[in-house]
Amino acid sequence: MNKIGKYGDIIRCIPDYGGFFMQKVRRTERIVAMTKVLTDQPNQLFSLNHFSSLFGTAKSTISEDLGIIKEAVVNYGIGIIETLPGATGGVRYLPYSTTDRIQQLVEQLCIKLTNPERVIPGGFLYMSDILFSPQLMTSVGAIFLTKLAASKPDHILTVETKGIPLAMMTARAFNVPVVMVRRDSRVTEGSSVSINYISGS
Amino acid sequence: MNKIGKYGDIIRCIPDYGGFFMQKVRRTERIVAMTKVLTDQPNQLFSLNHFSSLFGTAKSTISEDLGIIKEAVVNYGIGIIETLPGATGGVRYLPYSTTDRIQQLVEQLCIKLTNPERVIPGGFLYMSDILFSPQLMTSVGAIFLTKLAASKPDHILTVETKGIPLAMMTARAFNVPVVMVRRDSRVTEGSSVSINYISGS
Repeated sequence: MNKIGKYGDIIRCIPDYGGFFMQKVRRTERIVAMTKVLTDQPNQLFSLNHFSSLFGTAKSTISEDLGIIKEAVVNYGIGIIETLPGATGGVRYLPYSTTDRIQQLVEQLCIKLTNPERVIPGGFLYMSDILFSPQLMTSVGAIFLTKLAASKPDHILTVETKGIPLAMMTARAFNVPVVMVRRDSRVTEGSSVSINYISGS
Repeated sequence: MNKIGKYGDIIRCIPDYGGFFMQKVRRTERIVAMTKVLTDQPNQLFSLNHFSSLFGTAKSTISEDLGIIKEAVVNYGIGIIETLPGATGGVRYLPYSTTDRIQQLVEQLCIKLTNPERVIPGGFLYMSDILFSPQLMTSVGAIFLTKLAASKPDHILTVETKGIPLAMMTARAFNVPVVMVRRDSRVTEGSSVSINYISGS
């Protein structure tokens, strides 16, 4: 652990190579930070000025860094980095899933769901553990983004209660708020619109 | 856009520097991919073998890469990369918030909450927009991790309904499942434990 922890320090202490390595280390560190910031907030547009002032480097340098991140993200099939030109432009990360990953996840879910132990009294299928798994719902949210990106939603709507986790993770991928439909209105939530309908289920 | 998109290709086409740059580009690309994988699944332990076989490189190379990521993550205050030694060991990302970031977020929330337009009939405070914002709840979840990491929870428990988004994002930071307490039991969720108590509110 110590060896890893001191790796950067050792590099930085070599005076002959200092200038060169410092630059390399700085670029790599910037790339780590930018990757984290971009992938942590999917669909959020960041201006190049934002990163430029964050790291105290020229916009052209940030552009080069983004080029590397862009290529890596595509090469490893972990999404897309999109750059939008112009004054209102910037860069954002879209967590698109590849067809292979979607296939893999769907197969995993099928295996989980066909487990006979899931059948509970009354013939219902127990699914709460799947619906309340943050990691799984993050992956499913990314699939919704991949399939529905063209529809550019303003909100993700869900009916309480068990749909909320998936709605949250889908909304995170789209970077839009969640709207929750309640079965009953609450005084704590202000004025409401009520719709009565005949349910098919 | 094209310029950025082709950046990697241009570098790769310089024959004299090919070998050198290829290596550098490969390392940087690996670091981008590893940063994404680690930060996207907080608290998930990955063995060095996992990355070693994913990228087809030696474990010592992966160790060096992790050293760079570790340092960058600390330097930019975006969490901690923890390496656990031994056969069952590996590496994981903990999205700890710095005191400055926590302070900043709390101040932002205070400004939002003191907006007089939030007071709705009956004197209640409207908060649903905040509670259902994926980005905000991700940040608050990271604060819960920072403050409560020592308690090592097995699950994050919440009472339906409005607590679910925050519980999901906290559970994501801790990498544990969410348990939802319902006001009424449902036949679709199997056997249940009921507790009656006198509420103070």
